[in-house]
Amino acid sequence: MARVTYASAGVSIPTAERAKARIKRLARATFTPRVLTEIGSFGGLFALPNGVRDPVLVSSMDGVGTKLKLAFQTGVHNTVGRDLVNHCVNDILVQGALPLFFLDYIALGKMEPETVAGLVEGLSRGCKENGCVLIGGETAEMPGFYTPGEYDLAGCIVGLVERRAVLTGDKIRPGDILIGMRSAGLHTNGYALARKLLFDHAGYRVSRRLPELNGVTLAEALLAEHRSYLPLLKPWLERVRGLAHITGGGIPGNLPRILPAGCGAEIRTSAWEIPPLFRLLQQLGDVPTSDMRRTFNLGIGMIAVLAPADVAAFKRHVRRQGEDPVELGTIVRGARRVVYKP
Amino acid sequence: MARVTYASAGVSIPTAERAKARIKRLARATFTPRVLTEIGSFGGLFALPNGVRDPVLVSSMDGVGTKLKLAFQTGVHNTVGRDLVNHCVNDILVQGALPLFFLDYIALGKMEPETVAGLVEGLSRGCKENGCVLIGGETAEMPGFYTPGEYDLAGCIVGLVERRAVLTGDKIRPGDILIGMRSAGLHTNGYALARKLLFDHAGYRVSRRLPELNGVTLAEALLAEHRSYLPLLKPWLERVRGLAHITGGGIPGNLPRILPAGCGAEIRTSAWEIPPLFRLLQQLGDVPTSDMRRTFNLGIGMIAVLAPADVAAFKRHVRRQGEDPVELGTIVRGARRVVYKP
Repeated sequence: MARVTYASAGVSIPTAERAKARIKRLARATFTPRVLTEIGSFGGLFALPNGVRDPVLVSSMDGVGTKLKLAFQTGVHNTVGRDLVNHCVNDILVQGALPLFFLDYIALGKMEPETVAGLVEGLSRGCKENGCVLIGGETAEMPGFYTPGEYDLAGCIVGLVERRAVLTGDKIRPGDILIGMRSAGLHTNGYALARKLLFDHAGYRVSRRLPELNGVTLAEALLAEHRSYLPLLKPWLERVRGLAHITGGGIPGNLPRILPAGCGAEIRTSAWEIPPLFRLLQQLGDVPTSDMRRTFNLGIGMIAVLAPADVAAFKRHVRRQGEDPVELGTIVRGARRVVYKP
Repeated sequence: MARVTYASAGVSIPTAERAKARIKRLARATFTPRVLTEIGSFGGLFALPNGVRDPVLVSSMDGVGTKLKLAFQTGVHNTVGRDLVNHCVNDILVQGALPLFFLDYIALGKMEPETVAGLVEGLSRGCKENGCVLIGGETAEMPGFYTPGEYDLAGCIVGLVERRAVLTGDKIRPGDILIGMRSAGLHTNGYALARKLLFDHAGYRVSRRLPELNGVTLAEALLAEHRSYLPLLKPWLERVRGLAHITGGGIPGNLPRILPAGCGAEIRTSAWEIPPLFRLLQQLGDVPTSDMRRTFNLGIGMIAVLAPADVAAFKRHVRRQGEDPVELGTIVRGARRVVYKP
């Protein structure tokens, strides 16, 4: 098994020296004084901030999933790493945590230095943007596991929150308002279905430009990177009543995870226009609307639950950051599920 | 992408309900009061102990590698998880850290509930034995990525050490003694070469019993689980001058990682007998001794560096735990590398 420990020196890895140096440089670009590199070797060392009362570590493991097939088809390998970091950042953000560090896992049949460097480039960019250290990782060469030119990419994030600031949704009350933030595309979910519809069913190529998509290629539309909502929401973490990251399962699969007993959610379907890519996908396969809602984010990547009195200020805040927020609906009395209304 | 968050409730995953409940039970079996399950949802929440001065988090990501092929060949899926946990535990132990929690990544083409339950069984057992919480994980269903019946398994560990107790090897001096602890077999390294020699070159089947291996099958010998050296070394972490986990790269690839400038290591080849499995592998392919040393652990899974005055007490301590320690050699003046002497 090939081993790469970014924080280490002198570890033999079967990578061309130049690519190896590049990978190390990309990881080091994310380092802060909290990384104890000078004493790091087998594992990554991160000095926790002192003075955090009742510190809670929030961690999450995730993979990119079948979005990787688009990277294989296009040869664009330097975006999926950022997808993964942003996905993980959002997953801990919804519990109120800010990222500390990230570790990646890259598995491939045979070491391809340029591909790995591309992956780490995306990881490094995503980490830097989120103030997160790319503290370690493993690049595993596994002959016979992966088709030549293919790989798998997963990652683990660790973040920190004070115990009193953990976001759980327990303050959510009927009458609260649901504000949706836009997604940049499919983010990292629904690619198995999307690829089936576009490539198997409709027979399109990744280079195809469809008028519905304003002239961008299918590859560009599908590789659009998963957004991080950290810069937008960080200043409001103490005031929102709950956050839901809309990933696999869509709004009905994710919003209920933060609803307390006795609370349901009512979403107005007229509140926002579903972006063209999702409409195209639905039309191609005559996909039932309920399947679309359970598979895709349909244009909304993150939902914030707010007390009615905070809505105007929250909207002003996100608009100043260039966000076009959507008032999706309200919290209602009911079972912990989502109901759609026109 | 299928998502499993052990700490969560009500997350839809495409697994038979019984297997899902079993996986959750296996993960919960590792929980301690530090896991804030009642408020966990998108990520795993772990309350850090208070009162640790200058806490340093030590993290490591790793995969099982091609040892997994043995699990595929034999249908034994409940040991590789423990291999992985123990490997990760050792990787942070050598920096003085004790494990807090672990997250796994399982990727397969199509969800096989029994296989996944087997994997989590091994992970859970490994975590419990090391006092480590299996706080989260991701099970990714990726059609077209993996051969039916195959999968990949990786994991990330996070541990804690006080800054003043970080083990770096900087206290190592010429004259210090190298004590080797036994490995249980190949641990998790060298499987690509071992499989080539045994199955391609010699044409053996996994069920083959060879007289050299005392009547156990090749499958049993090769699936022998990676040992955790935590129980053995925990009481001595403040007294050892350095620890090296012997993984890919063998002793020459791993011991130099902890040697300070001006220190080399001299290993006496007569100090221990290389176990039969490694001798068999070498004979089958007439493998050069230097390749054997750089690929396999050759019977030594962990090396402790001790001041001469501590050696007798250390040996007594490990012998009381059933260990048969090997006095491998000494630290000498020199470049940071390993020299073998008869």
